[in-house]
Amino acid sequence: MIQAKAYAAFTQDAQLEPWNFDRRDVGPHDVQVQILYCGVCHTDIHNVHNDWGISIFPLVPGHEIVGKIIAVGEHVTKFKVGDTAGVGTIVDSCRHCEDCKSGHEQFCSVSPVQTYNNLDAEGKPTYGGYSNTIVVKEDFTHHISDKLDLAAVAPLLCAGITTWSPLRKWNVGKGHKLAVVGLGGLGHMGVKFGVALGADVTVISTSPNKEEAAKELRAHHFVVSKDEQQMKSIFHSFDFVLDTVSADHDINPYLAILKTNGTYINLGLPPKPWEVSSFSVIAGNKAITGSGVGGLQETQDMLDFCAEHNIVSDIELIDMKDINTAFDRLKKGDVRYRFVIDMATL
Amino acid sequence: MIQAKAYAAFTQDAQLEPWNFDRRDVGPHDVQVQILYCGVCHTDIHNVHNDWGISIFPLVPGHEIVGKIIAVGEHVTKFKVGDTAGVGTIVDSCRHCEDCKSGHEQFCSVSPVQTYNNLDAEGKPTYGGYSNTIVVKEDFTHHISDKLDLAAVAPLLCAGITTWSPLRKWNVGKGHKLAVVGLGGLGHMGVKFGVALGADVTVISTSPNKEEAAKELRAHHFVVSKDEQQMKSIFHSFDFVLDTVSADHDINPYLAILKTNGTYINLGLPPKPWEVSSFSVIAGNKAITGSGVGGLQETQDMLDFCAEHNIVSDIELIDMKDINTAFDRLKKGDVRYRFVIDMATL
Repeated sequence: MIQAKAYAAFTQDAQLEPWNFDRRDVGPHDVQVQILYCGVCHTDIHNVHNDWGISIFPLVPGHEIVGKIIAVGEHVTKFKVGDTAGVGTIVDSCRHCEDCKSGHEQFCSVSPVQTYNNLDAEGKPTYGGYSNTIVVKEDFTHHISDKLDLAAVAPLLCAGITTWSPLRKWNVGKGHKLAVVGLGGLGHMGVKFGVALGADVTVISTSPNKEEAAKELRAHHFVVSKDEQQMKSIFHSFDFVLDTVSADHDINPYLAILKTNGTYINLGLPPKPWEVSSFSVIAGNKAITGSGVGGLQETQDMLDFCAEHNIVSDIELIDMKDINTAFDRLKKGDVRYRFVIDMATL
Repeated sequence: MIQAKAYAAFTQDAQLEPWNFDRRDVGPHDVQVQILYCGVCHTDIHNVHNDWGISIFPLVPGHEIVGKIIAVGEHVTKFKVGDTAGVGTIVDSCRHCEDCKSGHEQFCSVSPVQTYNNLDAEGKPTYGGYSNTIVVKEDFTHHISDKLDLAAVAPLLCAGITTWSPLRKWNVGKGHKLAVVGLGGLGHMGVKFGVALGADVTVISTSPNKEEAAKELRAHHFVVSKDEQQMKSIFHSFDFVLDTVSADHDINPYLAILKTNGTYINLGLPPKPWEVSSFSVIAGNKAITGSGVGGLQETQDMLDFCAEHNIVSDIELIDMKDINTAFDRLKKGDVRYRFVIDMATL
């Protein structure tokens, strides 16, 4: 076994605190990653607080992992010691079901294994990236370009792929008008990718204060969602809406700003169901769709695209000991745009 | 002016009764159609009863019109006297807006004109196909093959194009599993088109009695929606669901039977909004979409496809005087699958 250090939650009401535990030995198809950076995703907070009733304690969060390969199993061909690597939200799947075979391992219907707060093939809990090291199957580990700021790469492994996947699925690009709703961890990546893919990007936010930030991200237009006149002015004008807001909100205004054949893409997980009239989609043949993270190949494609186009997340680097304060700030949306833990401080 | 005969509603509570009125003279780009057959759409009942609060009385329903060209305007090039022709749900649009230019004249954002219960460019009410004749712009009139049973062609102009349009937009065909929910006027056309396009078609109905009818329509499988076991057996197995049910119903079970990347296509207009959790679309990148009728070119494409594949609606031919009884039966779903009025009986 490999001794590992981490920050863990021991109950759903507790603060995260230091914990030592064992990782499995490096198997023939495994790599061991020395974790350099780990992003802080809102999902981490939901899991620590057991919001979905599925938490396994002690719980080590973290699924936006970047580090260096420090050991490889005997059959590993994809990595060598010293390579820079990333791990996202999944660490195993069956590889044989229709979803796995079509590159949607995140939806594996047989044996999907989340990076943390899940049971692996042997029934043992998985522990995430708020830790100094992790052992992962090479197939679930991604190549990371050293050209990029590695701390700022970490959020690409969840926030990045979550926004990238639907933009690619729906072929968003040149000639398209894209509205990005909400300017947080996901939203700011949606803007960066939308712009890089050639779309005409409008940021829609409840807060007029976000206009400058939107322009810094190279968004072309900015609209305040609470301003009825502004919303009216963009009626029936978008090919795509990428809604990144996780709080409960009415999605009907975002259907109304879509053109005929327009697509509303939801990435948030608001607690309450949407209320939508069938008229809203029938008039204009519109679509309401959602997207969950992404598969292995598209994650690597996204990372390669980011290396080529010099795209990373905008982050605030924190020390491990400050994670509880970071959680409190994240709950209030007080971060621009993603906290990343410097694992050297663990 | 051209003297016309029709059956009309004079108030929202009245029965339809005979009425004489004037049609406009045949303009340079108009054709005059002697109406042979007109289908009875559920929309006709909604409009007669003023269910949507937009009815203009006297109201002559009917937008599934088949007949013979008996006069053509001086600039008409598409038709000659004696041709068989059809008119659907729209008789005019601006032809210049983005929707018109992209073949979605039914969503024209400038000056769409419905075949009945609408105002034309001159502000005069339009009167539909429960009539002996109609004057229509040639561009909004479709060629109909004489090879087909003309009475049974009539419902193609609304029920047909409404099911055809989304199946084509989403490229439903060989290798796809398609579920058609509801086996009425729209549903039975969905089955016919789905089968003709090469999909593996399952009919889902609340009523076990519909199994035989589904098989007669060459559906490959049949599932009773009220049978939990049967519904469980088709979980996560369809590429497309075509939901043709207009009554209020929970659409979540139909999202659950979709595969990853599956698409739920709604054609009904249930009064209450849907309640849908964002999880239902995020888990599996699913889409909820709707479709409203179809544009001019795709209507002609559908009619040509029907001529080539010998596809028509299954109908019950009625006399004009029996329209009020037919309305009562249609409200109870007691028709297999579309009433068509024999206009010779007017």
